[in-house]
Order: sequence, then C-alpha cells, then structure tokens
Amino acid sequence: MSREPRTGIATVCLSGTLDDKLRAAAAAGFDGVEIFEPDLVASPLPPGEVRLRCADLGLSIDLYQPFRDLDSTDPDRFAANLRRAERKFDLMEELGADTILVCSSVADDAVADLDRLAEQLHTLGERAGARGLRIAYEALAWGKEVSTYDRSWEAVRRADHPALGLCLDSFHILSRGSDPAAIADIPGDKLFFLQLADAPHLSMDVLQWSRHHRLFPGQGAFDLPGFLAPVLAAGYAGPLSLEVFNDVFRQADPDRAAIDAHRSLLALTEATSPVAQPAPEVRGPAFVELSAGDSLAPVLSALGFARTGIHRTKPVERWEQGTARILVNRSGGPAAVAALAVESADPAAAARRAVRLDAKRLPREHGPAEADLAAVTAPDGTALFFCRNGNDDWTGDFVPTGESADGIGITGIDHIGLAQPFDHFDEAALFYRTVLGLEPAATGEFAAPFGLVRSRAVADPHRRIRLALTVSLLRRGEWAPGVSEPQYIALAVDDILTATQGARAAGAPLLAIPDNYYADLDARLNLPADRLAAYRDLGVLHERTPEGDYLQTCTEVLGGRVFLALVQRLGNHDGYGWSDAPVRMAAHRRRRIARAHVPA
Amino acid sequence: MSREPRTGIATVCLSGTLDDKLRAAAAAGFDGVEIFEPDLVASPLPPGEVRLRCADLGLSIDLYQPFRDLDSTDPDRFAANLRRAERKFDLMEELGADTILVCSSVADDAVADLDRLAEQLHTLGERAGARGLRIAYEALAWGKEVSTYDRSWEAVRRADHPALGLCLDSFHILSRGSDPAAIADIPGDKLFFLQLADAPHLSMDVLQWSRHHRLFPGQGAFDLPGFLAPVLAAGYAGPLSLEVFNDVFRQADPDRAAIDAHRSLLALTEATSPVAQPAPEVRGPAFVELSAGDSLAPVLSALGFARTGIHRTKPVERWEQGTARILVNRSGGPAAVAALAVESADPAAAARRAVRLDAKRLPREHGPAEADLAAVTAPDGTALFFCRNGNDDWTGDFVPTGESADGIGITGIDHIGLAQPFDHFDEAALFYRTVLGLEPAATGEFAAPFGLVRSRAVADPHRRIRLALTVSLLRRGEWAPGVSEPQYIALAVDDILTATQGARAAGAPLLAIPDNYYADLDARLNLPADRLAAYRDLGVLHERTPEGDYLQTCTEVLGGRVFLALVQRLGNHDGYGWSDAPVRMAAHRRRRIARAHVPA
Repeated sequence: MSREPRTGIATVCLSGTLDDKLRAAAAAGFDGVEIFEPDLVASPLPPGEVRLRCADLGLSIDLYQPFRDLDSTDPDRFAANLRRAERKFDLMEELGADTILVCSSVADDAVADLDRLAEQLHTLGERAGARGLRIAYEALAWGKEVSTYDRSWEAVRRADHPALGLCLDSFHILSRGSDPAAIADIPGDKLFFLQLADAPHLSMDVLQWSRHHRLFPGQGAFDLPGFLAPVLAAGYAGPLSLEVFNDVFRQADPDRAAIDAHRSLLALTEATSPVAQPAPEVRGPAFVELSAGDSLAPVLSALGFARTGIHRTKPVERWEQGTARILVNRSGGPAAVAALAVESADPAAAARRAVRLDAKRLPREHGPAEADLAAVTAPDGTALFFCRNGNDDWTGDFVPTGESADGIGITGIDHIGLAQPFDHFDEAALFYRTVLGLEPAATGEFAAPFGLVRSRAVADPHRRIRLALTVSLLRRGEWAPGVSEPQYIALAVDDILTATQGARAAGAPLLAIPDNYYADLDARLNLPADRLAAYRDLGVLHERTPEGDYLQTCTEVLGGRVFLALVQRLGNHDGYGWSDAPVRMAAHRRRRIARAHVPA
Repeated sequence: MSREPRTGIATVCLSGTLDDKLRAAAAAGFDGVEIFEPDLVASPLPPGEVRLRCADLGLSIDLYQPFRDLDSTDPDRFAANLRRAERKFDLMEELGADTILVCSSVADDAVADLDRLAEQLHTLGERAGARGLRIAYEALAWGKEVSTYDRSWEAVRRADHPALGLCLDSFHILSRGSDPAAIADIPGDKLFFLQLADAPHLSMDVLQWSRHHRLFPGQGAFDLPGFLAPVLAAGYAGPLSLEVFNDVFRQADPDRAAIDAHRSLLALTEATSPVAQPAPEVRGPAFVELSAGDSLAPVLSALGFARTGIHRTKPVERWEQGTARILVNRSGGPAAVAALAVESADPAAAARRAVRLDAKRLPREHGPAEADLAAVTAPDGTALFFCRNGNDDWTGDFVPTGESADGIGITGIDHIGLAQPFDHFDEAALFYRTVLGLEPAATGEFAAPFGLVRSRAVADPHRRIRLALTVSLLRRGEWAPGVSEPQYIALAVDDILTATQGARAAGAPLLAIPDNYYADLDARLNLPADRLAAYRDLGVLHERTPEGDYLQTCTEVLGGRVFLALVQRLGNHDGYGWSDAPVRMAAHRRRRIARAHVPA
C-alpha cells in the first residue's frame, strides 16, 4: 500500500462516557472509531449529535458494534432478529455509520447448517444493502456453530451478497491458535473490517481471556505483524482498528490510554511497512540523573564514585566510575530517578521518531544539560534523553573537578529498576519497545510482603540497556500506604564480595539481610561455608537459575524513593534477581519502619 | 467429636510482615498458624524468637510449609534434597514446629514409580522420625506424577512409616472434581494435616486459579462442609487450618482479613457440628436508617411516604409506606445508608450469635432508638440491628405525628443496594451468609462507564431480605475520582407506571434516562408503542430475562451517596436489574457533572 492505513479504535477500549472517549480518540490522532453499542445506549447524545460530534472531532464512524445472535433455527426468532436489525439500521443512518458488526451466535438456537446460515446472512445482507449499509460478519472464538475465520468465510462466501463481508479480529483468530496465512486467499473486497488486539498467553477460558486481558498490539505475546501481513496481502483497505477489552484500561484516564493505543498502531504499521525505519540502535545508558537532596553524595562517594564535574549553571554534579555516570541534581524534591539518557548514532532522528510515536517532547528547560539534548517523557514521568554515541555532546556542560577515586570495582550500569504507576505498566513496555527498540521479556510475578507484584524487563539484544519494570498487581489501598516501591540503579561489578567490602569500608549504608535468608540459601544451594559466611556478613542476595547466578547487595533507600545496588552476573543469567525481591523489599520496609520509630 | 476443632491459618493468607501476620492471627482468635516459608525467610526474627512470639500470642505452630520437589529419579539430587530437608528440620527444632508439609513434585525428575516414591518418602520419614518430627505429604493438583489424594495416600501407605502421613487440601481435591468421600476410609492417624480453602468455579489453569483466586470457606462455590465430613469421619483430630492465596487478601489489612478468615472456620465448624444452632430466620427489614441532611424529607414525601413519628430524644424521623419503614437521621454527614434492622424471633440470641461469629458489637449510644436493640457492624460499616418479629420493641421511641399520606403504591422494601469497599467484598458476602443466614448468589460482572463492577446478591430463601452488593473490579484510581458508587433503597411497587407517575406529580427528582436506551429497548423487546412511550416519559428501565421482568425508576442521588428506586418484579425475576446498571450509573454521573458545572 502506498499510503498509511487509517487508524481506528473501538470506544469500548477507553474509560468514561461516550463523549470522553470520542474526545480522547480524536486528541490521540485516531482517524475513526467503532461505536460500541452500550456506550451509545448509556449516552445522552442522540445519534445525530454523535454524528456531528465525530465530524467536529475529525473522526469517522467506521463501525457500529456488536449485533449478536442473528441467526436462529426458530423462524419466529429469526424474524424478530431481523426486526431488531432494522431498528439498528435506523440508528446507523442517524449516526452516519455504514457498517455493522454481526458476530457469530452463541445462543442455543444458533444455526449449524452452513447453507441455512448463509441463507439467513443473505437475507440480512439484502435488508442492509437496500439501505446502503454493510454487514461485517465475525466468528467469535466461542461462537456456538461458527468459531473460526474459515467457517465464517465459508458462510459469507455461500451467502454471496455484495452487502455482506467478513470482520476479522486478531484475538478471535490467534487465541485459538489458528494460522492466519489463509486470510491472504480471501478476496480483499470481502474483508469489510479488521479488529486488532494483542494478549498475553493465558491458559484460561477464552471468553474471560478476551473480556479482561486483551492488550494493544505490541504489549502482549501475539504476532500481530504476522497476522496483519496476510490481511494486507489479501487487499484489505479499511482501517486498522483496535478492539481491546482490558480491566486496567477500562478504568484509566482515557486520554492517556488513547495515546498508548495510537502508539501501538503506529508501531504495528511501521513493523509491516516495507519502507519503515527500524527502531534506532541505542547504547548506554549515557547517564542516569537522580534528583536528590544531600544524602546521595556521601553514598556515591562510599561506593567509589568520583565527582568528576560540576555543571556550569545548574545545581547538578557528575559522578563517575567505570562507564557508570550518574548526575545528581540537587534542585530539590525527594530522591528519585529523574532522567535516563541513551546514546544513538543520530540522536535528533531518534527523538523525532519518538515524537512520531506519540512520545511527549520534553521542554528543553527541564534538561540537566545545556547541550541541545533531545528529550521525551516516559510513561512514568522519567525524562528520556538522546545523546550522540561516544558521549561528546553533553559533557562539556560540566566543569571538570579533577577529582578521582579508586573505585570499588563498579564497571558500569547493569540496569535501572523503575516501579511503574498502576495504570501505565503495559504502556511502559510498549513505549520502550517502540521508542527505544528494547524487547520486552515475558511478564512475571512475585509475592511481595504487601501484595503481589508484576515484573517485566525490557532490554536491547546486546543487553547494553536493561530496564526492570514492576507494578503492583492491584492498586495499593490503605494498608501499608507508605509502600510505594523505590526505584534503583543496579551497578555492575565483577566481584560482589570485594566491591561490597569496599563499599562497607567506606561507610556505605548497606541493607542488612536477615539470617533466615542465609539458612534457607544454605539448605538450597549448599555453598562453601566461607562463602556463605561472607554473604551473610555483607548482605549478599544470591539467585541461582539453570542459566547462571545473580548476586546483589543493596543500599538502604536513600532519602526518598531510590536505592543503589551492586550486581554480579555469573554464567548466562539474564534476569533481575526477582526471586530475592520479596526479601529485599521486606528489609527495606523494615529499615523505614525502624527509622520511623526513632524519636525525631 | 465432643470439642470444637482447633483453628489455624497459614501466614500466606495475610498481608504484611511475619510479625504483622502473627499478631493479626492471634487477635482474631486463631489457635495456631502454619508458617509459610517465604514469610520466615524475609523476617528479621530468628526462629527461636518466632517461637517465643507465638507462645506469647497463644499461637501454636502447627505446620512449617512448603517443602517442594523432594523425590527424584536422580540419586544425587535426592541426596541433595535430603540434605535440604535436614536443614529445614534444624529450623523446625528452633521454631518448635513438629510437622512439615512436603508437596508432590512438579519437577522433571519427579518419581513416577509408586514403590520408588514410597521408598524415598520412607527415607525422609526415617530422618524426620529420628528427630521427633513428622512429614505431611500432599498431592498438588498440578503435581507431575502425584496429583490426586488417592495416589498420595497410596504412596504414604506403601512407605509405611509412623512419621509419615497425609496432608489434605480442599482446593487441590475439589478443584479437580475429585470425590472426597473415600477420605473417610483412610486411617485417621495417617491424616496429619488439613488445609481448607474455598474458591469460585473458574475455567482456567488450576495453578493460576489456586495462586490468585482462593477464598475462605463459605465465600466460594466449593462444598466445604461436604469435604470436611469424611475427614472428620476418618478420625482426623488436628486443626482446621486455612491456606488461601488471594490477590485481594494479600494486600488488605491483615487484622480485618484474619477476622474474616476466623469467621469462615467458625461457620464451617457450625455447619458440620451435629449440635450447632442454625442461623436465625430473619425477616424484615424492620427499617432502614439513612443519615441525611434536609434533602431527603421532601423526596420521601414526594414518593408518598408519611412522616409517622418523631424520635423522643434524637433528631430522627420515622417515615412509612406499606411495610417500608425508613428512619431519617438528621444528625449530619452525607446521605448514606447508616443502618439496617432485621426482625428475628429472638433478637438477643441472634445478636449473640453474630458476636460469636466475630461480628463487632456496636456500642449502644450509636443506635437510632432508645429501645435496647442489639446491634453489630457489617464489613462496610453499616450498623445491623436485630429487632423482635412484629416490630414492637423500637416503635415506642417515636412520638406519633398523626400524619398520613395517600402513598404512590409502595408496598415495602424490595432490597438494599450496598456498594462495598474494595477490600471487603468477599468478607461482606460471608458476613451476611453466616450472621443473617442469607444465601449468596453467584458473582456477576458488568461494565460500568468508569470500569468493571462485580456484583453479588445475598437473600433469604423467602426473599424477605435482599441485599445487592457491588464492588469495583479494580480499586479506582485518579480517573473519575468522584465515582464512588451510591447506595440505594429499592422500594417494591405493584405498578411501576402508576407509582412513578405519582412520584413525578408530587415533584420527586426522578432520574432521566437517555432516549438511546429506549431505541435499544424497542429493538430488543418490541414493546407496545404506548408502553414504550410511557417508559421513555418516566425513565423506566426494563430488564427481561427468561424468568421474568424487572422494571425500575430511580431518583437522582440525594445529597450524598444514596438514591431511592421503585421496583416492580414480573414473573419469577429474581435479579437486580444489573444489565441496566451501566445506563443508570452513567445517568447519575451525568447529573452530578451537570450540577458541578452550574456556577455556585
């Protein structure tokens, strides 16, 4: 196709009133919408006003949906269903929508005989065609007699009416494990509509899976580019339209969710376009910037960092060890990860691409550096800077101090841990996937002391940039309200014992780990006694998987919501020590409680 | 059995640190605990201190759990597993726990041959017995070679060691649909431990079902009394201990969750005891009390209620129509359901029973009436009063006004709608089931404008008292923060049109329903045109199911978080109009937004 496909979104994807949803879809840049019937039914806007509202917003109404349980083995019921359809046709005329989704019946009276079904579909097509309307027939994955696209196509083919075509939904097809390749053989002009949704692989009732756990393309485990290719190859020329039922999105700010949704389609289009630019190859991190009070400098010093520069005009210091560069911004606020900088061969192009992918450009005055660093905001508010490979375009902002330090063996940044806001976990994974080309790992889960936590890492193929994203499985309530998970920087070392000893000798506030952990570690791993004793002494956490070992020590939480960790990887361990996270989190929590009990 | 079984709870059921959990379990009245290993591993308390802490709290440590993947086809690995077990035995000696749970292996090297498995279990039993400890072997529903209780029993039988017995877990057995009857044939002294959990019927991977969706007995769909009977018949004499993995409980206040848990065991014990008192037969509601400002009286008046009494000493009015009695408490605060009174043949005994079931007794000064009404607090804070059948013990507190009204045809209270706090939905269903003997219906779900909502009704067999409970599926966040669902009183009428016309003529603030709803209703139900026109005019919502029809009109939300509804039931409709709830909720929301836009 020579032009970009049009983008659409079903109103059911978003939270709020119909008006909220339409405004959010338009603001995010969608070309059209599917009007989900319950949204219209609950709305005070008459269909004619919805039509005007959409026109004002620049949105086409691409589909009215869904119409359920059309066909029937009972002639009287089929007649009633035809009457019901005519009333919906009246509505569509008022709305200015020309296509209605008819999904395969789930009712007891669904027609099993394909010829009889085709006959009923033909009748409906005749009624619709007489009014200039079209029927897009869709196989629900849990349809009683029609649950696969080949069967829905066979019914449509036999019905043979120009006003009758197919609606394809990636979820219904991929959730059943059907091969979408044969879609390419369906005449393109019979593909009336395309609904796109991703999902994680879940072993559960497909109806529940569909109604609660759909995701926007690129957020789940389905191969959406592989699905879209045969649809486009068949000659489908309609919009790419999202239909995503998701518990979290349904209660989240629709403006934010619509942007996330729109980004997913831009990325999918890019992935299937022969002329698309690939995601930029990023390196780094060039630096991580921490907002901080005065508590951070002594800790960095104790961890062997040297303060190598002071910003010419801003209250920002530059600290270095190995390739790890941390900027400390003393402008105020609680300690937190304020910014992450990545390196790219063409930072300006990478930033432009990010903005094209709906990332919000960061106003320049917010940058830590004077250099013209292009920057956007990540879903959790972290600033994301793009620097030139080789790191030569921002260092000049800092007056060298000439200070140096022996270091404790930190070689660079292993990864950055970013606890995400509840509503934006899936958005974050998609953001980093599309904007930085980082590949999300599978979603995991662990039991933290105050509730379950979901985890997902994103990383580049060379593991030069790794981000460990976490979110609570349920939004936290009144119990333990202070427990918002801290962010952290994990610093790579070659020898966890030497590095930790060095840090301790210099007075770093290391996190103490309970003896019970080491008794369990001994039972599980049967480590040499001296090694176990050193672990216990230093507070080393040790995760072993078949791929290798992950050793870490952590500082206490430092004056806000951030801590630092030392990390040593052995073998091919590619994880983040999440099996030890509950112990670490309980220890951090304990420290904070203990401090809270100290009289001020 | 002549005495009540001991009660226990696994620490994994509750949120917080090990210390939080132990304190909560003791405060709720449990006799003992199962120590869940990760809770101990993350705790700074050494095992000896945990032992002392439990002793101080009056808790026995009934089980240490779980020990995973003991058996192995690889002799070296089995030897390592024995070493691991010995380390745990060391720990148990420090803890003072004499029984450890060993669950069937899920590993690739699990032993399939029952004789070889028995041999390995015998070896472990020998090691445990030598230290005065016991092994309770449990079949996980997803165990690789052992996944049913009959197979775990066969392995234990063949192993034939006095220190080796069975652990039975109701979830693992009932989730697979196994018949528990044959448990009665297992020698009671080989039943070392019993874990109890309920669950809703879900069609999903059993591991995920188990890890996220277990419930306390009486909250789900499993027949726990039917499970417990053969266990007790076999001669099991150990504690009834809860092991419930539940996403909500894991992040909720452990003190509250422990009380909920303890209540579930009290009710289960009662249900299986030959000498138990049944739940009291309740009638009513005797009255519903609303806290309210001045906005409510004119509305009650417009709905045809007469103000029949004024409290002798408190700012409380009594309003009546048919058998519907509403007390309006003008003490202040936003309009809300403050109390519900039920009638019983022996209210004092019913209240004592409620307190025995861990309900919190309400201090008397909080009561609306001077009469000595026994009262407890429901999980959502609503006061629950017990009155004598015939309603003769509280009416004397009111000075009759002599006022009367023609009424609009309200015959009584159909039900009360109580939106529940997020953490306490399952607790509420169990509370009403046990304390009032109301039977919970299946949990339902509907898509409200700002997120999904879960619904569950509780009602007595004669439908004299019905409560409609709802909760948001996810705790609401920043989007649409004002949307906490209102409570309501649904008032029964015999003719919705006449009653609503009467209310409107008297100036009741009726909720307007969008025309779009009636266009859809026409398409679906093909009602006579005059009836549809009347519905549209009056704002009637009409739900039709195969059982009958549910017709309702609602007032606006009245000065706080409560509204009133008129309800007519046709045929055998036994529901609550939940399919219309999204339309009603959007309309209520619209009214509030509209009011917010009016300049003050």
